[in-house]
Amino acid sequence: MQLYIGNKNYSSWSLRPWLLMTHAGIPFEEIKLRLSFTEGSEFKNTLKKLAPTGKVPLLVDGGLVVWDTLAIAEYLAEKFPSKQLWPADRKARAHARSVCAEMHSGFGALRSHFPMNIEASLPHVGADVLRTQPEVVRDVERIVEMWTELLVQHGGPFLFGEFSVADAFYAPVVTRLRTYGVPVLEAVNGYIDRMLQLPAMQAWTKDALAEQDFLDFDEPYRTARA
Amino acid sequence: MQLYIGNKNYSSWSLRPWLLMTHAGIPFEEIKLRLSFTEGSEFKNTLKKLAPTGKVPLLVDGGLVVWDTLAIAEYLAEKFPSKQLWPADRKARAHARSVCAEMHSGFGALRSHFPMNIEASLPHVGADVLRTQPEVVRDVERIVEMWTELLVQHGGPFLFGEFSVADAFYAPVVTRLRTYGVPVLEAVNGYIDRMLQLPAMQAWTKDALAEQDFLDFDEPYRTARA
Repeated sequence: MQLYIGNKNYSSWSLRPWLLMTHAGIPFEEIKLRLSFTEGSEFKNTLKKLAPTGKVPLLVDGGLVVWDTLAIAEYLAEKFPSKQLWPADRKARAHARSVCAEMHSGFGALRSHFPMNIEASLPHVGADVLRTQPEVVRDVERIVEMWTELLVQHGGPFLFGEFSVADAFYAPVVTRLRTYGVPVLEAVNGYIDRMLQLPAMQAWTKDALAEQDFLDFDEPYRTARA
Repeated sequence: MQLYIGNKNYSSWSLRPWLLMTHAGIPFEEIKLRLSFTEGSEFKNTLKKLAPTGKVPLLVDGGLVVWDTLAIAEYLAEKFPSKQLWPADRKARAHARSVCAEMHSGFGALRSHFPMNIEASLPHVGADVLRTQPEVVRDVERIVEMWTELLVQHGGPFLFGEFSVADAFYAPVVTRLRTYGVPVLEAVNGYIDRMLQLPAMQAWTKDALAEQDFLDFDEPYRTARA
């Protein structure tokens, strides 16, 4: 299998299936393309040959092309049942799918005001956004409430006990809370630490820091690398 | 099971699981709430007691609450395997999930410029939007291309042969193309006709026409019912 991804510093959607597969020990070939919206770029040319959306992430398994993070997660969960990518319990699984779908189509304010940027440290921006953007505050509050409830309900260490698709889906939020210095409750800080300490997250972070790339369309707050 | 939905004339996300369950013959109690964004409304009060998102659709199965259309579809597919809500073939299923996920988080231009409005007939608006909004044209072209390819590939009568979650996910687009008089190829017109003639779609449409409600936040083009 090949997983096509974008820049590790910026591409939050790429992180999700990459983390899921790496943490679960599902072997794959990583094909990283420099993110671009420009027609004719290597990014667009490569992806358009594979799928109509022309976006990352994209999973290729022999002659089969699966696009979109949620479809990739479901495909992998079916193909590797022993990896238990979704919670084993039927109710917990439905709940996990609900929060993943909520992430998939929601939290627009958080996503636009706090774009993933692993190498950056922008706590002054975070404080400013939280003071002026009530919708971002609502998004953060909803996520912190969700995490807190799930950690209590399932006893941790991850959202549904063992690591699942849900943790992979919220992994980019974990990095954003740190990048923008968002203050959160202690229980949630423990979860953030556990996520960032996963070997797969450490490997992704190391690669992100090594990129030393600067994409202005993903940089609303910086004019150059620090 | 109870399925909470909004106005049948307007609520495109409600239509998806309602159509899926009704067409498949999965019994459920329909609980319809008048759409509202206002805190303290019956809509918000009822939904907030059930789930954190406060949105429709929402499926309640005993003590379990499943929110978001995609999570509901996956839950039902697991609970009723004999209904074959997803295509039986593994590759077709991955493809169906890809196009559903694409709908779930995409086609923003189509969704904002052509909101679902079953009772309205707005071909003059449609012509104007198609002339002035290239992103809407791109969304329509992508969907028509997708449908055409799938109908050829699987031989019809529905996107993946037999009716599946994918048809339920694109059902609101079917109604929009008619409401806004969007011209499409003959092959796609046949699919639109088949969808609109489904007994479940006819039942939904009949209920939508009987509502005779007017929600200004869902009416960018009309000032009152015709």
